[in-house]
Amino acid sequence: MSHNHPENDPKYIGLVVNPGIDKPDSVNADSVKRFLKKGKRKLLSPEDYLRGILDGNITILSQAVTLVESKNLDHQSVAQEIIIKCLPYAGKSVRMGITGMPGAGKSTFIESLGRHITGQGGKLAVLAIDPSSERSKGSILGDKTRMEELSSDPNAYIRPSPAAGSLGGVARKTREIIILCEAAGFSTIFIETVGVGQSETVVHSMVDFFLLIQIAGAGDELQGIKRGIMEMADAIAINKADGDNYQKAQLAAAQFRNALHLFPPTGSGWNPPVLTCSALENTGISQVWESVNEYVALTKGNNYFQNRRHDQSTFWMYETINETLRNNFYQNPQIRSRLAAYENLVLTDGMSSFIAAQELLNTYFKLVGDKDN
Amino acid sequence: MSHNHPENDPKYIGLVVNPGIDKPDSVNADSVKRFLKKGKRKLLSPEDYLRGILDGNITILSQAVTLVESKNLDHQSVAQEIIIKCLPYAGKSVRMGITGMPGAGKSTFIESLGRHITGQGGKLAVLAIDPSSERSKGSILGDKTRMEELSSDPNAYIRPSPAAGSLGGVARKTREIIILCEAAGFSTIFIETVGVGQSETVVHSMVDFFLLIQIAGAGDELQGIKRGIMEMADAIAINKADGDNYQKAQLAAAQFRNALHLFPPTGSGWNPPVLTCSALENTGISQVWESVNEYVALTKGNNYFQNRRHDQSTFWMYETINETLRNNFYQNPQIRSRLAAYENLVLTDGMSSFIAAQELLNTYFKLVGDKDN
Repeated sequence: MSHNHPENDPKYIGLVVNPGIDKPDSVNADSVKRFLKKGKRKLLSPEDYLRGILDGNITILSQAVTLVESKNLDHQSVAQEIIIKCLPYAGKSVRMGITGMPGAGKSTFIESLGRHITGQGGKLAVLAIDPSSERSKGSILGDKTRMEELSSDPNAYIRPSPAAGSLGGVARKTREIIILCEAAGFSTIFIETVGVGQSETVVHSMVDFFLLIQIAGAGDELQGIKRGIMEMADAIAINKADGDNYQKAQLAAAQFRNALHLFPPTGSGWNPPVLTCSALENTGISQVWESVNEYVALTKGNNYFQNRRHDQSTFWMYETINETLRNNFYQNPQIRSRLAAYENLVLTDGMSSFIAAQELLNTYFKLVGDKDN
Repeated sequence: MSHNHPENDPKYIGLVVNPGIDKPDSVNADSVKRFLKKGKRKLLSPEDYLRGILDGNITILSQAVTLVESKNLDHQSVAQEIIIKCLPYAGKSVRMGITGMPGAGKSTFIESLGRHITGQGGKLAVLAIDPSSERSKGSILGDKTRMEELSSDPNAYIRPSPAAGSLGGVARKTREIIILCEAAGFSTIFIETVGVGQSETVVHSMVDFFLLIQIAGAGDELQGIKRGIMEMADAIAINKADGDNYQKAQLAAAQFRNALHLFPPTGSGWNPPVLTCSALENTGISQVWESVNEYVALTKGNNYFQNRRHDQSTFWMYETINETLRNNFYQNPQIRSRLAAYENLVLTDGMSSFIAAQELLNTYFKLVGDKDN
């Protein structure tokens, strides 16, 4: 985001929330039909979006998702109204984070587990958080051919990663898209991420269940795993447990079980299982899904599920506040122009970290005070 | 901290840095002598503090530390001047974090290792971070009798935990006290913390070497360890490896070695060793110290040591900025009075986390803008 973007300017904060801009006229059923037929980009009214979403209309859901992702302020304000309207209908899905290094077979796994879920009558939405998508041009979920069967499944909705942005921004949008998908009746939401960055922590803080997908490797299975990621897992699935690889996968599973045993209990009363599966051969997949259901039953029974949802909601409120406070500061042009010099002073012991911080804050609050009057 | 404290008011930011208050008159050598003799609480000039600290005068160092810890704004401004003057003389020690659960024998260990260091001609300062000290009334280091020999050692300086406050505030003060101690010629600084909270992460981010002290227990040694703490350790010492406990300690060490093996490498090129020792019988203590020295030699050779110091300095600049931005927001009376209601709206799905955040931010920036003009 550029520092000139109104979203990051204190003067504009709240604009999205209390828009003074023109809203599109309400449309009647006919105009909805016209809209759907022509695929025209004219906006519906928030009420019409709500109706379409509650009807499970994928075209309307998709356009609402596009509004959430839009950088256009008009679109954003409509998106916020849609979200408010959807909130009372949201929250009923099981939100499941799925992570694993590239090569672990996530797409095939998601396709396999996804087909299992829709085969049992479930409705599945697959989202992704991929902060690297700007570089990789949407490698993750970008190519629907990766999940050929699932993408033609009427009970599945696959949505590629939102356009790249700050991780916080992407996270917020994903949370909002979850609300829309839940209002549209999806009973399970997958949120896929690549296990190589900070994104797992973000996904972990918006899901009910966090699955780590691994494969058997060169014998030292755990060396490649990012610090802390194993501790977030509610289950580990060793994928590609097929053919020549079967025995190695069992060994890897034993290693992971040992490792998990070393961690303290999670507070949910749940002991994360290590399972083996082959997404390719469709073996072990139903066991993974049974684990998820067992977890949900256990944690709904002991209220951990609800409490975690509540914690996540407040976490994201505070996270949004904190991120905005930081953005306003660091994207302030006066601060940007001074920051490097202060950092350099601190590095050369010309100034203590604390004094540098105080002087920059002094500059900032003077500016904020001057600007708004 | 109360929300009325000037430190947290945007209007007052920078006051500490650019004090308009009266400074104590400069004193000459005679007045230093008088000060030292009478133990009077009259402030010296920053220059005199610097001279005393560089001379290794413990009484003057102690009073400077007290100024750093003071809530009095005059004291704080003098403290900042002293720190600036000390900075060019600081940085030459090895900063070592020491953590472990209560009962691991930290005090005895510190006494034993400390005596080893001073016995080799080193000068040791022992500080502590204990965010719980308000509750426990300074249980940690509060009682110098815990380290009887070390506290009467002329080459050791033991300073109890700063008065309780926010972890960020305590951390900043500890970093500043490190600077003073280094300027006073201490070659090793211990920073002790209890391994039960967030304080290890804070300590880890201000030290060169992080030691985890453990004891052999009921067979499942690793269950009690806080998530993530093992990953921060540059070495693990299994203490109380004596008498009947010796064999158990060896077994525990093997368990920890296995567990450490599961973690990815740290980037320093260092493989954290697991050592056994008995602080009581003074066995294995010199090996711990050898490990520290090996680590320092390795990481100074590959520049990891210096890079980590630099990262820490900028980390603390940014951390101070971020904490102040948050404090100004959350301690604003208008925000405080609204926060619970918004949190409740979010929890009852009456409002999305994002919209709640935006409305609160809107209120805040309007207030900040109004107040400063």
